[in-house]
Amino acid sequence: MSTATIDRQALLARDATDPLRDFRARFALPEGVIYLDGNSLGARPRAVSERLRQAVEHEWGKDLIRSWNTAGWIDLPQRVGDKIGTLIGARAGETVLADSTSVNLFKVLAAAVGLRPGRRRIVSQRDNFPTDLYMAQGLAAFLGQGHELVLLPDEPDAETVVAALDDDTAVLMLTHVNYRTGRIHDMHRLTEAAHAAGALVIWDLAHSAGALPVDLNAAGADFAVGCGYKYLNGGPGAPAFVWVAGQHQAGFAQPLSGWMGHAAPFAFDADYRPAEGIARYLCGTPPVLGATALECGVDLMLDADMSVIREKSVALTSLFIELVEASCPGLELASPREAAMRGSQVSFRHGHGYALMQALIARGVIGDFRAPDIVRFGFTPLYTSYCDVWDAVQIIAGLIETGEWDQPQFHARAAVT
Amino acid sequence: MSTATIDRQALLARDATDPLRDFRARFALPEGVIYLDGNSLGARPRAVSERLRQAVEHEWGKDLIRSWNTAGWIDLPQRVGDKIGTLIGARAGETVLADSTSVNLFKVLAAAVGLRPGRRRIVSQRDNFPTDLYMAQGLAAFLGQGHELVLLPDEPDAETVVAALDDDTAVLMLTHVNYRTGRIHDMHRLTEAAHAAGALVIWDLAHSAGALPVDLNAAGADFAVGCGYKYLNGGPGAPAFVWVAGQHQAGFAQPLSGWMGHAAPFAFDADYRPAEGIARYLCGTPPVLGATALECGVDLMLDADMSVIREKSVALTSLFIELVEASCPGLELASPREAAMRGSQVSFRHGHGYALMQALIARGVIGDFRAPDIVRFGFTPLYTSYCDVWDAVQIIAGLIETGEWDQPQFHARAAVT
Repeated sequence: MSTATIDRQALLARDATDPLRDFRARFALPEGVIYLDGNSLGARPRAVSERLRQAVEHEWGKDLIRSWNTAGWIDLPQRVGDKIGTLIGARAGETVLADSTSVNLFKVLAAAVGLRPGRRRIVSQRDNFPTDLYMAQGLAAFLGQGHELVLLPDEPDAETVVAALDDDTAVLMLTHVNYRTGRIHDMHRLTEAAHAAGALVIWDLAHSAGALPVDLNAAGADFAVGCGYKYLNGGPGAPAFVWVAGQHQAGFAQPLSGWMGHAAPFAFDADYRPAEGIARYLCGTPPVLGATALECGVDLMLDADMSVIREKSVALTSLFIELVEASCPGLELASPREAAMRGSQVSFRHGHGYALMQALIARGVIGDFRAPDIVRFGFTPLYTSYCDVWDAVQIIAGLIETGEWDQPQFHARAAVT
Repeated sequence: MSTATIDRQALLARDATDPLRDFRARFALPEGVIYLDGNSLGARPRAVSERLRQAVEHEWGKDLIRSWNTAGWIDLPQRVGDKIGTLIGARAGETVLADSTSVNLFKVLAAAVGLRPGRRRIVSQRDNFPTDLYMAQGLAAFLGQGHELVLLPDEPDAETVVAALDDDTAVLMLTHVNYRTGRIHDMHRLTEAAHAAGALVIWDLAHSAGALPVDLNAAGADFAVGCGYKYLNGGPGAPAFVWVAGQHQAGFAQPLSGWMGHAAPFAFDADYRPAEGIARYLCGTPPVLGATALECGVDLMLDADMSVIREKSVALTSLFIELVEASCPGLELASPREAAMRGSQVSFRHGHGYALMQALIARGVIGDFRAPDIVRFGFTPLYTSYCDVWDAVQIIAGLIETGEWDQPQFHARAAVT
């Protein structure tokens, strides 16, 4: 429908027939808030409260140490990993919950450069999420073997990426959906191009897993990492995941070789012997409480059809762009206009993006700001309605029209933006 | 008192005047269980339930992403780190909560070998906790610069350790209190000896922090790591901590250089620039739920006097040894008899230790087994009573006397022991 025919009533009607409409009630969303920041921290699945209470009071409190066996704590990394795996085109036994995205990047970067001895370039892009770049820099400096992080300019198109791959490239490390703009890389094409150059590929799925269909095996990818606390709704600082293609799992031992990655952790041998399969990507004792909360988020998502999620995501983001552009002068679209190129977020540039976002948050529309000038809005089809989009845009438009965002309290920077 | 004069009545009286007696009610302990495994997983502080409920329902559920600022999530690693620091002789700003013990070991090992270029030996002992050895092996293999993990025989005395330190030793890496036997290393003496040889020292405090007085700065130590889920009662898989002496904090960048260790994480720069101070040992997004639970355990412990804890710990372990040796033939003491050399645990060797421990657990006395032949009992003065010791020994003695432990179901190995 064109903007002219859209009104709140029409969107209420659209929500009423939304095939995902029943999912919203399974999330706890505060009154008076339109939450468009699930790409930074997903909302809380209602089931988490009771599940965590049970884990804390019964599993920890009553069964104590026995719960490693009786409650299956020891299996959490593989069990939840495999569930996430179904969202990203993994086969069973290829995905495991572990550590943080950053730490997992170190593991797979180390693995990848180890599998391409003699090659020294790690190719990425300047506007990749910073921790990805920092981990590669840390690894290269630590190894001291001349590895170089080569950064393509912001938002490189596929041709630019392909042109950067050469016979000295060990790894192409990209985030599938860009954190600032939501631009999607062509996973199939770039994986193929990397392999054609003899390189391996690491995909960061932080803004993909749970947000749109991903098929790592169909793309022939090598390694992937991802985040539990965004679209998987796992809670603040939820454990991350790591995926390794079957053919790479036995080829090497990654350097963070902790006891949970040992073939027999409870034999207490003095010598490290890596576990078979994906378990060798585990390191220390798994974070049981965080993994338990994350499992609730993942279970909820598994009840939905990813293609239906994607369809609604495209509809929500397209509607948002259309309405903002019709009523909010001064906001310049930073996300791809073409829906197929866009993840589940919409970003706009604004000269005073920080203050504008603070004013929006004060008015109950929660998105976030990404330096230097991006206001970012994430859309989570499981709990975001078409009517939310309408209401959010009315508030944005009102703030822009009145200039009310330009007040001193909205310019004061907080520790976390 | 001698064994002859000890009886349950006398121990009940002793519990009644125990200066720590009021702490027991602050833990949730199940009925019918004598829990002597707080050195593997500490019992649940009652306060955790309500605190986690608040964190999940209010901080995550209602305030959502804003809680990074409003609930102080972003400060959790330093805030809880500094609280733990008061238990281990750290100054403010030297301790931070992060990752797992294993991952933190990698950071400080990398730091230490980096500060001792040209030296290639990492000295430890064969019966150090395996993950410590595995992380050193992983690091050495990955660096490929000829670093060698030199393992002293089990339970080396101070002279043996000192004799192993030479001008090719980069790092002495020891666990302060041995996980199997509870033997305490002389932190002052060995740190001094390592420095005299030009080496640095890493202390693993997994079985020390919260269990007995530790003073890292008085000992002049360089690096330490430790565990949140044992004597700090932080819950299953709680985050670990890392301590770095002030003089080493600015000297280098550790290789796990994630965004939370960046000087300005929310500037989203493409180049890593390490934060000043201990924050540069952070890597990924902090595990908020796990850190919140751990803070409850640490807060509880800070209400007690560590010297009183240690005094009771010595009394409990001494009593346990005395009673077991008087009534449980076939159990051979594996822990130091001298209290000053012993942490807060007592271990015995038994030819069928695994089955014996399973039978004990079935009878409600929960300790654990450590391969090949150790039955291990941990004593947590905050919630273990003198009467618990008496009752536990009656049950052990009964099982030994009747031979009831020797049944097929007690020999069947579980995944986690």
